[in-house]
Amino acid sequence: MTLLAVGTIAFDSIETPTDSRHRILGGSATYFGYAASFFTPVRLVGIVGKDWPDRYSQLLADRGIDLSGVVRDEAKNSYFWHGRYTPDFQDRETLACEVQGFDQFVPKLPDHFRDSRFVFLGAASPSVQLRTLEQCNSPEFVFADTVDMWIERSSGELTTLLQRLNCLLINDSEARQFTGHRDLIQAGKAIQQMGPKMVIIKKGEHGCLLFHEDTVSPCPAYPTDKMIDPTGAGDSFAGGILGYLVNRPTIDRRTMIDAIHYGTVVASYTVAGFSLEGIQSIGLAEIDDRRSEFRRMLLVE
Amino acid sequence: MTLLAVGTIAFDSIETPTDSRHRILGGSATYFGYAASFFTPVRLVGIVGKDWPDRYSQLLADRGIDLSGVVRDEAKNSYFWHGRYTPDFQDRETLACEVQGFDQFVPKLPDHFRDSRFVFLGAASPSVQLRTLEQCNSPEFVFADTVDMWIERSSGELTTLLQRLNCLLINDSEARQFTGHRDLIQAGKAIQQMGPKMVIIKKGEHGCLLFHEDTVSPCPAYPTDKMIDPTGAGDSFAGGILGYLVNRPTIDRRTMIDAIHYGTVVASYTVAGFSLEGIQSIGLAEIDDRRSEFRRMLLVE
Repeated sequence: MTLLAVGTIAFDSIETPTDSRHRILGGSATYFGYAASFFTPVRLVGIVGKDWPDRYSQLLADRGIDLSGVVRDEAKNSYFWHGRYTPDFQDRETLACEVQGFDQFVPKLPDHFRDSRFVFLGAASPSVQLRTLEQCNSPEFVFADTVDMWIERSSGELTTLLQRLNCLLINDSEARQFTGHRDLIQAGKAIQQMGPKMVIIKKGEHGCLLFHEDTVSPCPAYPTDKMIDPTGAGDSFAGGILGYLVNRPTIDRRTMIDAIHYGTVVASYTVAGFSLEGIQSIGLAEIDDRRSEFRRMLLVE
Repeated sequence: MTLLAVGTIAFDSIETPTDSRHRILGGSATYFGYAASFFTPVRLVGIVGKDWPDRYSQLLADRGIDLSGVVRDEAKNSYFWHGRYTPDFQDRETLACEVQGFDQFVPKLPDHFRDSRFVFLGAASPSVQLRTLEQCNSPEFVFADTVDMWIERSSGELTTLLQRLNCLLINDSEARQFTGHRDLIQAGKAIQQMGPKMVIIKKGEHGCLLFHEDTVSPCPAYPTDKMIDPTGAGDSFAGGILGYLVNRPTIDRRTMIDAIHYGTVVASYTVAGFSLEGIQSIGLAEIDDRRSEFRRMLLVE
């Protein structure tokens, strides 16, 4: 089984309440791909610019990630995001975002990517997300994330995209913004009405809500006081989820919750460092151990 | 086994984003006692004033709640709270609070209350909480709640009280206020250092964190879009917890989480109506059914 991911591959400058980093490795496809690579081979689609250092590509290639879908545009720089977190890490402000034409990017899938059965459409222009999906021959499970910028700029295309998804991942404030419902249960159900059988509303340190058919399942986050940088938590959460799902015989509610537990654990490692530092030092054994600990916390095992 | 509760027995005037009620039955001891009465007999300690209607007392007595510890002060009115919720129900503003001498109340336990083994000290002046506790001969499990007003006015006495507790119940913003830690995991651990073996930090619609010895367990809330009035959710949560614990042979982490699931379910009924409306129409069968549904959501069963 094969997993394809499209999204940003980017430089991030991050300011947390206690520390900061300048132009470190970031991007939705980067975090997703690295997290999913613990579970399954990953194919990445994206664009970088003339300023992109080989060592960042090498770091992903070393995880067995197939980068043949990543193009390099020598006429531009790479996608760049500069953000600052509030003192309680509950919110963040975008100080700068240089999209570098990523919203106009027309992905061209390498031929050997087209048979991908599991597809992650990382937070990106819905047009980029749709154009990527259209090049897949027969995707079985399509999982997409979106963020406020694309809801504002492209809500029409987002609605089109929703009809092609098995599962939408969206955070709480964006679910409210997109649907107009303050209540998250109502917001999740409203998104299901627009197409996807499943919706996962992310609530940061409070975990998530899984909407699966007519059920809503709350899943808490792994409790940690080792928060260094929340950037990439949502994408590595998604990577853990879809990476785990790739090899499941069926995807029902129980499988989804199992997958969410894996995603939760991978994200808990991500936030313990800047960029990929928190997950570069671990392997599947650490993930499995923490997953067992987490499930004991919840009385699941 | 016997359960004693002290706290406010009060009139509430409530303004929610969509509705309001004037001088309805409220108070921490009221909500706690009613919720716990599904599981075990309850003894109530508190004070009401000359304006207290018999029908409110009768409503509690009809649940088998022993009101012989509730005194009536003919010189004063009853405790009165007037609050308004923010549009998203995430916060509330106190518009008026007539304590009516409750902070000076010197409880006198009826003799037959003194052998109570399980004690709930509802949000009240720590002095009232301590004076109640001192009259119990040999309490086995002491569970207390506190709120911002008492943290501000009586943090010294609160610290004394903490050393007498098995478990403190406190909400997230108050845990931050009391300890100075923004991070809830750090805040919970800091409170444990002050005395109680267990701490439950309530997070409203996001559930709670249980601190038990050196473990932290996240417990989500029951997902509901039937929110009418959150008042009393925390006290009925506590009532479900302690009511369930009364008949357990041991109280370990697993028992506490089982108890939290019961408390969560009782609270989910409370918020579906003003005052006790949401829990007056149910019985233990409904609670057990929803608890099973909730545990299936979490994969616990």
